[in-house]
Amino acid sequence: MTPAPVDHDERRARLTEVLLDVVAEGGLEAATIRTVAAAAGVSIGTVQHYFKTKDDMLGHAYRTVGQEIGDRAEQQAEGATSWKEAIRAILLELLPLDERRAKGYRVSVAFASRATWNPELGAELRKDLKELQDIFVDMLQQAGVPDAEREATTLLALNAGLAEPLIYGDGTPEQVVAALDAYLDRVF
Amino acid sequence: MTPAPVDHDERRARLTEVLLDVVAEGGLEAATIRTVAAAAGVSIGTVQHYFKTKDDMLGHAYRTVGQEIGDRAEQQAEGATSWKEAIRAILLELLPLDERRAKGYRVSVAFASRATWNPELGAELRKDLKELQDIFVDMLQQAGVPDAEREATTLLALNAGLAEPLIYGDGTPEQVVAALDAYLDRVF
Repeated sequence: MTPAPVDHDERRARLTEVLLDVVAEGGLEAATIRTVAAAAGVSIGTVQHYFKTKDDMLGHAYRTVGQEIGDRAEQQAEGATSWKEAIRAILLELLPLDERRAKGYRVSVAFASRATWNPELGAELRKDLKELQDIFVDMLQQAGVPDAEREATTLLALNAGLAEPLIYGDGTPEQVVAALDAYLDRVF
Repeated sequence: MTPAPVDHDERRARLTEVLLDVVAEGGLEAATIRTVAAAAGVSIGTVQHYFKTKDDMLGHAYRTVGQEIGDRAEQQAEGATSWKEAIRAILLELLPLDERRAKGYRVSVAFASRATWNPELGAELRKDLKELQDIFVDMLQQAGVPDAEREATTLLALNAGLAEPLIYGDGTPEQVVAALDAYLDRVF
């Protein structure tokens, strides 16, 4: 009997899940190759086979989370019957309204925190923020909202800031969504 | 000749400045008792005399930055001739519009990032956010703005989010202040 072939994508995905848990529980500093290996029950060498460095590992987790959010946001937006509804659907996906997204949010904050001094991560984050801004400018223009560039900045800033009462404060999902809705009603 | 007495407050303040630099340059992970001692040109024991742990050190830096922002915001608000002007002045102090505040912002992000899993830091951050929210609710009520509670949430979220294009993106201070002003014009 030959051993089952290793599914590398599956293994990498599993290690990424473990990293999300480790960051959620102990922050970025807890997330070393060693702690992820221990939490996943594999050797350090196995983790290093998939991720050369901590930044490698963090970058992959950040991209995985981003991809998930992007895919779900796209699905939601496709079912929308107005620009306002599409924009709202995407903004809600970006908010840490459930445990899964809260985990993703913590990894993104960890990534952003490292990006303030690591130029490579900084460039990646800048590119992603620019892409999101461009998508919103485009949607707002198509929706006929005046000064779409500034409105996109405001809307994305508001949404980013609304994560704070959820993660650090006493904000409930209901309050946060109500604040977003009140703002969207002003824009549209 | 007897040696000059040690000014402990001065020394603690100097170590805090060094910590702000270390965090700005290398992130929270670089900010160990050891690296701060090396950067300050003092012994590890000296740093430990003032800060028992890394969290101690980070907490003190966070509070120093918060105190500075609070003092300046109060000064600015006192000179204001309307509630709108007072609120705007405080919000501008909270934004990382210059190098000093950008350094403070990085320490606050580092603190917030640790606060996602350290309950003690989490409680402190929650208390501070609540205090800020209460101040804004009070000012907005006095200004006669309807639904002051929700408006305070929205305004503070927007302001928090507007730091992102400044720190991580391509946003200029002019763009960010313009977005804030456009929003304030809607509120008042």
